Amino acid sequence: MANTRTTSAAAADGPGGGPGGGPGGGGSGDGAAARGGSPGWTAAWELLVVSGEVGVRGRGRALQAALRDAVRAGRLAPGTQLPSSRELAADLGVSRGVVTDAYAQLTAEGYLTGRQGSGTWVTDVRAASPAASAAGAPGADDRGGPLDLRPGLPDLSLFPRAAWSAAHRRVLARLPNRAFGYPDPRGLPELRAALAELLTRRRGVAADPDQLVVCSGVAQAHTLLGLVLHGRGHRAMAVEDPGSPEHTGLLAATGLTAVPVPVDADGLSVDALTATGVRSAVVTPCHQFPSGVAYSARRRALLTDWARSVDGLVVEDDYDGDFRYDRAPVGALQGLAPGHVAYTGSVSKSLAPGLRLGWLVAPPDIVADAALRKRTMDLGNPVTEQAVLAEFLTSGQYDRQLRRCQRLYRRRRDTLTAVLADRFPGAEVTGIAAGLHAIVTLPARYGPYARFHAAAHRAGVTVRPLSDYLTTPAAPDDDRVHLVVGYAHLTPEALTRALTLLAEATGP
Amino acid sequence: MANTRTTSAAAADGPGGGPGGGPGGGGSGDGAAARGGSPGWTAAWELLVVSGEVGVRGRGRALQAALRDAVRAGRLAPGTQLPSSRELAADLGVSRGVVTDAYAQLTAEGYLTGRQGSGTWVTDVRAASPAASAAGAPGADDRGGPLDLRPGLPDLSLFPRAAWSAAHRRVLARLPNRAFGYPDPRGLPELRAALAELLTRRRGVAADPDQLVVCSGVAQAHTLLGLVLHGRGHRAMAVEDPGSPEHTGLLAATGLTAVPVPVDADGLSVDALTATGVRSAVVTPCHQFPSGVAYSARRRALLTDWARSVDGLVVEDDYDGDFRYDRAPVGALQGLAPGHVAYTGSVSKSLAPGLRLGWLVAPPDIVADAALRKRTMDLGNPVTEQAVLAEFLTSGQYDRQLRRCQRLYRRRRDTLTAVLADRFPGAEVTGIAAGLHAIVTLPARYGPYARFHAAAHRAGVTVRPLSDYLTTPAAPDDDRVHLVVGYAHLTPEALTRALTLLAEATGP
Repeated sequence: MANTRTTSAAAADGPGGGPGGGPGGGGSGDGAAARGGSPGWTAAWELLVVSGEVGVRGRGRALQAALRDAVRAGRLAPGTQLPSSRELAADLGVSRGVVTDAYAQLTAEGYLTGRQGSGTWVTDVRAASPAASAAGAPGADDRGGPLDLRPGLPDLSLFPRAAWSAAHRRVLARLPNRAFGYPDPRGLPELRAALAELLTRRRGVAADPDQLVVCSGVAQAHTLLGLVLHGRGHRAMAVEDPGSPEHTGLLAATGLTAVPVPVDADGLSVDALTATGVRSAVVTPCHQFPSGVAYSARRRALLTDWARSVDGLVVEDDYDGDFRYDRAPVGALQGLAPGHVAYTGSVSKSLAPGLRLGWLVAPPDIVADAALRKRTMDLGNPVTEQAVLAEFLTSGQYDRQLRRCQRLYRRRRDTLTAVLADRFPGAEVTGIAAGLHAIVTLPARYGPYARFHAAAHRAGVTVRPLSDYLTTPAAPDDDRVHLVVGYAHLTPEALTRALTLLAEATGP
Repeated sequence: MANTRTTSAAAADGPGGGPGGGPGGGGSGDGAAARGGSPGWTAAWELLVVSGEVGVRGRGRALQAALRDAVRAGRLAPGTQLPSSRELAADLGVSRGVVTDAYAQLTAEGYLTGRQGSGTWVTDVRAASPAASAAGAPGADDRGGPLDLRPGLPDLSLFPRAAWSAAHRRVLARLPNRAFGYPDPRGLPELRAALAELLTRRRGVAADPDQLVVCSGVAQAHTLLGLVLHGRGHRAMAVEDPGSPEHTGLLAATGLTAVPVPVDADGLSVDALTATGVRSAVVTPCHQFPSGVAYSARRRALLTDWARSVDGLVVEDDYDGDFRYDRAPVGALQGLAPGHVAYTGSVSKSLAPGLRLGWLVAPPDIVADAALRKRTMDLGNPVTEQAVLAEFLTSGQYDRQLRRCQRLYRRRRDTLTAVLADRFPGAEVTGIAAGLHAIVTLPARYGPYARFHAAAHRAGVTVRPLSDYLTTPAAPDDDRVHLVVGYAHLTPEALTRALTLLAEATGP
């Protein structure tokens, strides 16, 4: 288990739960510049010398406290890189384990953000709450703006406000008084029934209402499952590489270390997974994030066989399974092995992330534990919007919304490929059979990436490189520019404009 | 720290977060009967012999797994009492610590419910999700019904549906698109500003919007604060005795052991608190739950002095501070020592528990940590109903709702005292200056409690004894009947009928 990575939940942009702010609050080029420019370890060193006076026993705790205080007080600024555990241990005259433990603890608490092979940084809390700055304050984040090509957001203007509002009014008129009391922690029975029907019909999930828990989006589903697995002795969980830093961050907060496992053209490498020794994995088999690969049938079978053989659990994040453009949707992995797969999804892409409505479907014993955890976490989701979603589902309005989004997003995807072919000669686009984003590879003449990023930044266009999602660095002789491009949140006109600006600014 | 109690979150009925189902899903008389009737330890013993074969090292984990499996599989039925840790350790030939650790772990996970001095039981999961059965299934819980005199619920018919619905419509028409994206984990800025104004004005809270986190009710506020304190090395926290089992249960789920500290006529005993050695406490100073005592000014000063002296934190649960009938409201404790008190509250009593909307106000460093925890727990509360509450607050509708409830609840309180005087000669009522419940003490001729409870049960009236909230048993020579009576959820007519029925059924 040497090959681990931990990343704070603040590093987002991922499937399912991700709110989309990148680490360091901008493109990774900014981050890289900050990392290279100021050797943060000097600050850390000065700080930590102070706490060198404590006795041997309390040293680990003292180090954690000193780091925590320094971050809180701003002495270690957001984005500051910490020294390696080896360096710091040598400087402080403590064992390396004391330092790695402190880094792990503070990463779990969200103060630090780390990724194996590339170091540890002070978390940028602004990135952890993108909406805070997006709400109109000076220097507002342009998240989802017309020149933002990062992945992670649907088109928020497609949220069916009038229909949602009308359903809310009907629900408030209809619900019995007792419905406004303390809710069922597992979710409103009528919503669980409607979701089970939806997931069975559209996604091939083996879903029984009694095996479903309504929760606050996929983020909470993963937190609940992480806590349940931790309670059963799991201490590590496999994640995809490339993959979503959001998965890694949420697991860290539940006490689980993320173990990256390579993804190839057929999906997660089950050989590599087996070699890790872990008994659980979080995957995006229908449209791998960010590569866009759909797991092959054989890989799916190998993965579920693995789960059975280790008596383990696969957590399936079906973050954009509703949107597939060229053929019938790929059914959920969960249908193949309902006893060993926990399925998670939400309305964040189909309706709006702000609703914080999601679900998990899991084997009975896992569901029972997750419901108990949900009970102590918040007593259950708010009642009225659960009832509104139930009405949306049973009345057919939800299906109509999905069809509408699918139609519009397919057109935007086609715009993306057409404009790329026109403006970026030699560009390759992959992973576009589904979802809200694509992998775009530009010829080497657009690189190296640092130059490309700087030019895009000057033009006001925000992009995100594939390397942000990779643990293993790309091949050093690959000078091409690999981007993860979100396109669904932009109209064809806006998308064309953003890509044209990008081409003009970055062209060779 | 010998004097500890742990209770699963399923044991509810308390202030703030409590959904109100009692342990065992009924009056405590039922529970006592089940406990006395079937010596559950036989089942546990048979079960555990099986796992006696494992090696010495894995014994603790094996015991936990065996207990967990037995509860899940139903071999240990809900309500079953487990043997004492001493007995079980002797029978299994393991150290007592192995057993107490296993009990503590499973209590934290919600499988077991325990209370110092009265043993450990298998949690009744039905009690953990009262609304599940309340939704109309056969055998539906009568929670909040016309003959239910248990505390914990407001009158759900007072939720202003039409006004809430109208505000929701306006909000959906007004919010910018970006508002439907991923939320600020701390809460909508406009809601935090409106709540800070409300709490400053009505409750004397030193509230700055930047020190406030919107969360899913007081339950989540306490879970967040428990996790933050645990992350800072706290392992135990003082709770009031008598007090809310909900506090104890939520703390247990965050890894904190509840240490009961006696409450007298002036509030929590600060001498006893100091003697525990803990550095944090959760209290209900404005209207102690369940005794109804308002902490005296001197006791408040002693408590905040204590918090400063140990550099600790007092968590204030202001669960019914909005309702005071005979004089001006008692200001929040937090105003006296904002650097050492975290204030928590919700709309569960003023609007409806089903909205799952609450807040915490805490010192800056605690708030920062709580916001990070909130981020990994659910990314933030749903947006639209946060915006609706903000509109309710700024438009004055919330104040009107409070005045309306206060007027109606005062009348019900007066009905309670009048009917008690009429139907239960010699009854004493205390704690009625505020809140939604009272302590009712009936003369010895109504006792002993087992007889009283059985007669009430036959008449269809559900009552709850004060002993359900006590760690220290009442004086053995006190034959009087001590009840905690919730009255606010019943109209004067319904209340009169329920009390009259109770008097006829239980009268000497």
